[in-house]
Amino acid sequence: MITYRTLKELAEYLGGTVNGDENVTVNGLAPLDSAGADKITFLANPKYAAKVAETGAAAVLMAPGGERYGRNVIEVANPYLGFARLLTLFYTKPHPPLGVLPEAIVGTEVTLGEGISIYPGACIGNRVTIGDRTVIHPGVAIYEGVTIGDDCVIHANAVIRERCRIGNRCIIQPGAVIGSDGFGYAPDGTAYYRIPQIGIVVLEDDVEIGANCTVDRAALEVTLIKRGTKLDNLVQIAHNCQIGEDCMIVSQVGISGSSKIGNHVTLGGQVGVAGHLSIGDNVMVGAQSGVPNSLAANAVYSGSPTMSHREWLRAMAVVPRLPELKKSISSLEKRIAELEAKLAE
Amino acid sequence: MITYRTLKELAEYLGGTVNGDENVTVNGLAPLDSAGADKITFLANPKYAAKVAETGAAAVLMAPGGERYGRNVIEVANPYLGFARLLTLFYTKPHPPLGVLPEAIVGTEVTLGEGISIYPGACIGNRVTIGDRTVIHPGVAIYEGVTIGDDCVIHANAVIRERCRIGNRCIIQPGAVIGSDGFGYAPDGTAYYRIPQIGIVVLEDDVEIGANCTVDRAALEVTLIKRGTKLDNLVQIAHNCQIGEDCMIVSQVGISGSSKIGNHVTLGGQVGVAGHLSIGDNVMVGAQSGVPNSLAANAVYSGSPTMSHREWLRAMAVVPRLPELKKSISSLEKRIAELEAKLAE
Amino acid sequence: MITYRTLKELAEYLGGTVNGDENVTVNGLAPLDSAGADKITFLANPKYAAKVAETGAAAVLMAPGGERYGRNVIEVANPYLGFARLLTLFYTKPHPPLGVLPEAIVGTEVTLGEGISIYPGACIGNRVTIGDRTVIHPGVAIYEGVTIGDDCVIHANAVIRERCRIGNRCIIQPGAVIGSDGFGYAPDGTAYYRIPQIGIVVLEDDVEIGANCTVDRAALEVTLIKRGTKLDNLVQIAHNCQIGEDCMIVSQVGISGSSKIGNHVTLGGQVGVAGHLSIGDNVMVGAQSGVPNSLAANAVYSGSPTMSHREWLRAMAVVPRLPELKKSISSLEKRIAELEAKLAE
Repeated sequence: MITYRTLKELAEYLGGTVNGDENVTVNGLAPLDSAGADKITFLANPKYAAKVAETGAAAVLMAPGGERYGRNVIEVANPYLGFARLLTLFYTKPHPPLGVLPEAIVGTEVTLGEGISIYPGACIGNRVTIGDRTVIHPGVAIYEGVTIGDDCVIHANAVIRERCRIGNRCIIQPGAVIGSDGFGYAPDGTAYYRIPQIGIVVLEDDVEIGANCTVDRAALEVTLIKRGTKLDNLVQIAHNCQIGEDCMIVSQVGISGSSKIGNHVTLGGQVGVAGHLSIGDNVMVGAQSGVPNSLAANAVYSGSPTMSHREWLRAMAVVPRLPELKKSISSLEKRIAELEAKLAE
Repeated sequence: MITYRTLKELAEYLGGTVNGDENVTVNGLAPLDSAGADKITFLANPKYAAKVAETGAAAVLMAPGGERYGRNVIEVANPYLGFARLLTLFYTKPHPPLGVLPEAIVGTEVTLGEGISIYPGACIGNRVTIGDRTVIHPGVAIYEGVTIGDDCVIHANAVIRERCRIGNRCIIQPGAVIGSDGFGYAPDGTAYYRIPQIGIVVLEDDVEIGANCTVDRAALEVTLIKRGTKLDNLVQIAHNCQIGEDCMIVSQVGISGSSKIGNHVTLGGQVGVAGHLSIGDNVMVGAQSGVPNSLAANAVYSGSPTMSHREWLRAMAVVPRLPELKKSISSLEKRIAELEAKLAE
Repeated sequence: MITYRTLKELAEYLGGTVNGDENVTVNGLAPLDSAGADKITFLANPKYAAKVAETGAAAVLMAPGGERYGRNVIEVANPYLGFARLLTLFYTKPHPPLGVLPEAIVGTEVTLGEGISIYPGACIGNRVTIGDRTVIHPGVAIYEGVTIGDDCVIHANAVIRERCRIGNRCIIQPGAVIGSDGFGYAPDGTAYYRIPQIGIVVLEDDVEIGANCTVDRAALEVTLIKRGTKLDNLVQIAHNCQIGEDCMIVSQVGISGSSKIGNHVTLGGQVGVAGHLSIGDNVMVGAQSGVPNSLAANAVYSGSPTMSHREWLRAMAVVPRLPELKKSISSLEKRIAELEAKLAE
């Protein structure tokens, strides 16, 4: 079902201002290049400003003060956020509450909230609690004693092991594993003795976990991911870690055991973080970096092992020239030897 | 059931030539070292040519012109390909069409082709289309509106999210996730606002996806993997990427959002590719490289950040000698200072 | 149900000695900082020795000869191992034998041991053998002809493909895939021809596989992981690999095809190992290293490409100073040119 909305309505929803005809109506959002006359488009990257002149869209969402080429525009302080909010408005809708569908398997002493959906093939263990409006997709396995908050979406074939606790509005993508055993063994002289991992994982509110991520349960207490933090796909969080609020952990990052990440930290793709260290608030670490030691807050780092990002950029610029530098040194050595010989004559 | 075939039959199947007794029969294929008298073996790597003399096999598949040590041989232009085709001939057989097995869960308005097999525990959402002879293994979750072509194999516990489209003859290994949400958030000043990912993933014909890979759906349009491309295990393809035809993406590679990979590209294991860049046709990137910028076609690159492979090899040879170079420079500085002092006398 | 045990009993179980009141009872184990009066705590890292004075625990497990600050202690040679064994004693219990639960799907000609548990949603293929006391969690898919030993735990949504063999006391974490097809293709001039992977995977006794790991089946014979080896999460083992006994393979490691790893090898997180090489016994490889060639036994390596760990540490210390070295060389060149000019006068 297609819903049309006036620019006036949209500007109100976004807290923006219409510049042009506020009665124009649109039914969705599309990129500058491909938008048709029933769509609004958006200019988030100033690089593409000239495309505003040529877009086929009925209107453009943009920052205040940009050239509008005579188009109908909605001006908002943060057009990228506005774009995201319009996508939500036009394209997302609440999941219909389906209840427990046949062929879902629900254990004993399970507490289910209102408006939930549990799909066929999901297995809910005993003594599990699931909050209101939460959706559990096919093949999800929830072990005994798990608690999940309100308005969560647990996608197909995700696994949440025993006693872990998931906050409200969490989204877990398909195949993610929460609460697998931490990697802990004590050498007993001949082989490795498994250290029972009796702790849990806690995800606070608004945490999102990417597809096929793994978050290990703590040895004794809690592996904690705090409010608002997002994990991309295939990320590994080892046992006893604590990840702060509103962090962005990009795909294939690995964080070793007992490390503590501050708030608002961004770790680029494939970064590795050693164990038992601290990363301060607002740190950014460049892709593929290896973090062997704690990092002070409010700075940008890169490299393996990490250094300041600026230092790293300058060092990396020299790397391709290393053979040449080596040759220069040899040549200098020869020239100095000649000078020394001359002076010794 | 064991089937014997004459060398004559096999040579015809492979488009090769028998050198020796064409009526000899074999019932399978085995390595040079371990093949018995009822097997054919193969020489793909010239390094092992001398083993032809000693193999216990009844016959040898090899390139034309090699020394045959008096053995029965089948000569083919590409023995490695011939080996693969003989494996197919002797050891693979079409999956028997089992239909929808009891305890498979099939939604409404589902279109099923002929000769399909859907195993117990698989969940097929509403309005899904599945082509002829396609096999869906246990625990696979296919969300609403997905289309899958003919002759596909979707292995256990793979997940294909809503509306994604899979071509013909695609193979998806266990646990792979197609169509998870792209990692997109707009900072709203205090936290991250989730950008709805309303696009899809399209896999063209003959695409193969390794175990536990993740391929994210596009934000607005399509994450595309073109005909014939193969992904090894644990590969991450971010939203809006476009991967060309006949690429080989080795295990644990990560490709960031909106990057465009050409045709016949090979990315070595654990390579990371940044977002919004282009990699030209026929590029090869060495294992563990980090690609921060676009790469021109028809070349080999390595390093993080990437440089030409040859440049990288030469630079890496210097790395272990850096402490020595540093010492040389100090020593040169001392010697020059002495010369300067002498000359200033 | 809480069980109290005397220090005497615990010392006997651990093979240690009580120093203090051997009749004191405890009901569990907790860290130095947070242990209450009904718990025993442990001192494994001498760094925290002073905390023994202040812990609220009733007793302390420690190495012989440490300062006990008047506390009741149990002395054992290896307190870390003792800690692990007490965790086992207090917090683990045998899984109750549940049998085949309703909604588990079991094929034909399946052999089930005594005291097993097969949870709802698990799918066991035809001709599978499962040993005594083994537990199969929800959503596990076991293909045809697989053999699993005694006392194994196969966690939710793990997949074991056809004919693979799992030893005794193996633990497979959620989402792990055993026996996916190896990544093998023969270029046929226009596209890639799939090489059938007709081999299997064998896990010997006491092998543990982390969450969402992938272990590929061999092309022809066996991908082998030997007794006692442990894989952390998201590890990739390619086809035809052989991994020795008692190895520790940390998260996100990738090992390419046909490589052979010795016994007691430790590979740090995100290490990549190229194909067709050998790593000797007792080797340690630092995190994020890239191993392009075989490595001799009994040594520590780091870097990508790898060198000796000590060499790598010294080289990496120079990297941030490369721009400065380059500048020094330029300055030396200038000074030498001046000296040369002077001498030529």
